Amino acid sequence: MKRFNDLTDFDAQEIAGLLELAGRLERLPEPHALEGKVLSLLFLSPSLRTLASFQAAMARLGGGSFVISPEMSIHGLEARPGIVMDGAAAEHVREAVPVIASYGDAIGIRAFAERRDLDEDLADTEFENLVSLVDVPVINMESAIQHPCQSLADWKTLDDLGIPAEGGKFVLSWAYHPLALPLAVPAAAVRMASQRGMDVTVLRPPGFELPPPVMNQARRLAAASGGSVTETDDRREAMEGAHVIYAKSWSSTLHYGDRPGDQALREELLGWCVDEPWFEPAREDCRFMHCLPVRRGVVVADGILDGPRSVVVPQARNRMLAQMAVLYRMMKG
Amino acid sequence: MKRFNDLTDFDAQEIAGLLELAGRLERLPEPHALEGKVLSLLFLSPSLRTLASFQAAMARLGGGSFVISPEMSIHGLEARPGIVMDGAAAEHVREAVPVIASYGDAIGIRAFAERRDLDEDLADTEFENLVSLVDVPVINMESAIQHPCQSLADWKTLDDLGIPAEGGKFVLSWAYHPLALPLAVPAAAVRMASQRGMDVTVLRPPGFELPPPVMNQARRLAAASGGSVTETDDRREAMEGAHVIYAKSWSSTLHYGDRPGDQALREELLGWCVDEPWFEPAREDCRFMHCLPVRRGVVVADGILDGPRSVVVPQARNRMLAQMAVLYRMMKG
Amino acid sequence: MKRFNDLTDFDAQEIAGLLELAGRLERLPEPHALEGKVLSLLFLSPSLRTLASFQAAMARLGGGSFVISPEMSIHGLEARPGIVMDGAAAEHVREAVPVIASYGDAIGIRAFAERRDLDEDLADTEFENLVSLVDVPVINMESAIQHPCQSLADWKTLDDLGIPAEGGKFVLSWAYHPLALPLAVPAAAVRMASQRGMDVTVLRPPGFELPPPVMNQARRLAAASGGSVTETDDRREAMEGAHVIYAKSWSSTLHYGDRPGDQALREELLGWCVDEPWFEPAREDCRFMHCLPVRRGVVVADGILDGPRSVVVPQARNRMLAQMAVLYRMMKG
Repeated sequence: MKRFNDLTDFDAQEIAGLLELAGRLERLPEPHALEGKVLSLLFLSPSLRTLASFQAAMARLGGGSFVISPEMSIHGLEARPGIVMDGAAAEHVREAVPVIASYGDAIGIRAFAERRDLDEDLADTEFENLVSLVDVPVINMESAIQHPCQSLADWKTLDDLGIPAEGGKFVLSWAYHPLALPLAVPAAAVRMASQRGMDVTVLRPPGFELPPPVMNQARRLAAASGGSVTETDDRREAMEGAHVIYAKSWSSTLHYGDRPGDQALREELLGWCVDEPWFEPAREDCRFMHCLPVRRGVVVADGILDGPRSVVVPQARNRMLAQMAVLYRMMKG
Repeated sequence: MKRFNDLTDFDAQEIAGLLELAGRLERLPEPHALEGKVLSLLFLSPSLRTLASFQAAMARLGGGSFVISPEMSIHGLEARPGIVMDGAAAEHVREAVPVIASYGDAIGIRAFAERRDLDEDLADTEFENLVSLVDVPVINMESAIQHPCQSLADWKTLDDLGIPAEGGKFVLSWAYHPLALPLAVPAAAVRMASQRGMDVTVLRPPGFELPPPVMNQARRLAAASGGSVTETDDRREAMEGAHVIYAKSWSSTLHYGDRPGDQALREELLGWCVDEPWFEPAREDCRFMHCLPVRRGVVVADGILDGPRSVVVPQARNRMLAQMAVLYRMMKG
Repeated sequence: MKRFNDLTDFDAQEIAGLLELAGRLERLPEPHALEGKVLSLLFLSPSLRTLASFQAAMARLGGGSFVISPEMSIHGLEARPGIVMDGAAAEHVREAVPVIASYGDAIGIRAFAERRDLDEDLADTEFENLVSLVDVPVINMESAIQHPCQSLADWKTLDDLGIPAEGGKFVLSWAYHPLALPLAVPAAAVRMASQRGMDVTVLRPPGFELPPPVMNQARRLAAASGGSVTETDDRREAMEGAHVIYAKSWSSTLHYGDRPGDQALREELLGWCVDEPWFEPAREDCRFMHCLPVRRGVVVADGILDGPRSVVVPQARNRMLAQMAVLYRMMKG
């Protein structure tokens, strides 16, 4: 495997193989599998789970890793092309990224969305520019529009819970958050559930529709897998018979890159905090998923997070296990 | 071992076993003992020795570790229960801590004292709240009132120096410092020396008495081990025949949580800087111990730190060796 | 090997042996060579390549490492001797450095130049003070006047490119940079090329002459190795027939420690940005080397860095390989 960037690059059988490997590596540890191997970890945005889970994953397989973030260079990293570097930044990504990559057998890169231009973010321009500088295998640790490690962990979580692919109802719901967050997680989640063959409903207020290219791709994936994709702003309709609600806040696509416009729309939506009444039309055992970090009392009520519906901790733990499978496939001779 | 939180949870024989193991792992390295094992390290307060010595300890045993501190999350970690997270903090410890723990085979947690309410700090409320979120084995890397890794290293240091348990005189002395520091180290030191069976004197100015629960526990430990515990503000009396002086500054217990009150009392005590004249009534070979970091010329004179009495560097090195024994017992199948 | 501080401590045969080992460890990995061994990494100045390449090097050889930088202690590290520590700093290097060293089988230390007094920097006073506190083997990870890891990597890079020692023409050129940078890299580069037996030209504007002790040492090395050393401010003369140009900015030695004086001189020299016309009198295949980080459009034109002359990425990768050889020699029983 030379590139783990988009879960839809892999077919259902390949994904099943990765998840089987993840399970096997948990049951039957292989602490020598990646001995002498090194994973370079480049974070251009902050991280907690990704930072911890990749380091733990490499250690469990007997390899090593190192972490680089911009504040470790003398004055941050410059990313703009063709610039005369007479300001604060002492280093350009055009040197830093290939060098960091050259110390590893693979590199993980995190680069968030710029959230200025929707088309640029949908094209993953910033991330692809970084990847073009690298000639070792690359793992996307979250970019403007991709988060394949989260998706693989989420798929495993659904499997672990015994939530069926065929006939399983997956609700991706927007939730309130004070800031305009990136689209990577909702886009990855809707693709993942569609690819898995689930009946997917995207529940979001007007102005927060997912971009047409994302929804169209999800519909194509559903058509191929036997699932379905619908979109609504009617909570009751969305939650009807749901097996799982996956909550996440994201930017207004109507006001993308326009913070005041986004903020004005968002301020009306404080009620979009997932709470027990939401679950009334759902299956009794409907689960709550979230990629974390999550704002308590804002995105979701304490009672849900602390109650039996929440699977956010095992979901986050699955990040490590899923990544172990990816690293094993990528680095083992 | 599921929990290394309080050295008094272990009897003298168990402690001897840990120290024997520490010595053996130094003489006969076992670089495969913890292969594929991971230690999660969570620092809610800054650290140097603990940070370095735990990473080194795991590496020497063939395992790995990762470090998380609050600034690695997007905007710090929220710890208050029931709060609506609409401020800066994007993540709550209720999610972060169990997730971080779930990536490891054990977790080390450092959480300093709040120093607002003495009873809360004596009950180790903040640390115990964090531990309740975790279901893997836990190591206390310093909390409001415990520092068992320091105590085990200190015990080993006394053994290494050949300072007798029976009849060995241990002076724990308050020293001047510009800030009101936590009680964990003095409480741990007085318990450790009492449990070891030494004749313990706590030397401190009025207003800096250790809390009664700490002193009472030390007296019970001394009664069981054949040691003794006394308290005084008379330096000459305290140092008479001492084998070792263990210096440390701590908050005024008379003005606990009241910074101006503490400061007013403290300002009169600049003379509590350990120096050669203190040792006149002590044994000629009386040693100087300190957990570090130490302020030169404030807590102790340069001449003592740079002279033959000081054992602060081997004492700090024993942190690594003691922790290797704990990790081995905790993680090895 | 107890000390890797100055490449000139090693003769040509020893250097050839290290580079042969570096090549062998790349071709035939030895992921168990340093199992259970620990490298302490102390950075008193920021780093990217050194930070990443040492961690990667240890992991490839099966060992571990940990990183300490001043912000990890409570309020920075104090380095001044004899000071009463009643200010912000809570820890002195006299305790911190031996403790950090004691957790490892070797220690790497980075301490930049103070750039106040040229003689002190040439004597490497700050670094030598730190080394005197340590009793494990020490690697200089860049000090006021040494950078042996860079030199060994540079030597390997020249070998890899097939640039001859005898008759190979090496140009060390000053370049513009907005800040007054240390002398370690240019001093190390001119020594390295002289020791390798090359014909070395130092190209620099008036006021930026390398210090006489550095040039005299280079001339002695060249005399022993069959090379030569010249100095000029005439670009055309310098570049005539060059195999390689090694660009680097450094402080004015005429105004050392005098920032306004340095700045006034420097402002006239914006034209010292390496670009294609520089290469006109050089060999057609003349290469461009730089230790990184490099300011694009300031030190060197984008076209050079992005074109076939530049070897800065393999040069930086050689840092890891060269350091693996040093670590192997230093730590393997």
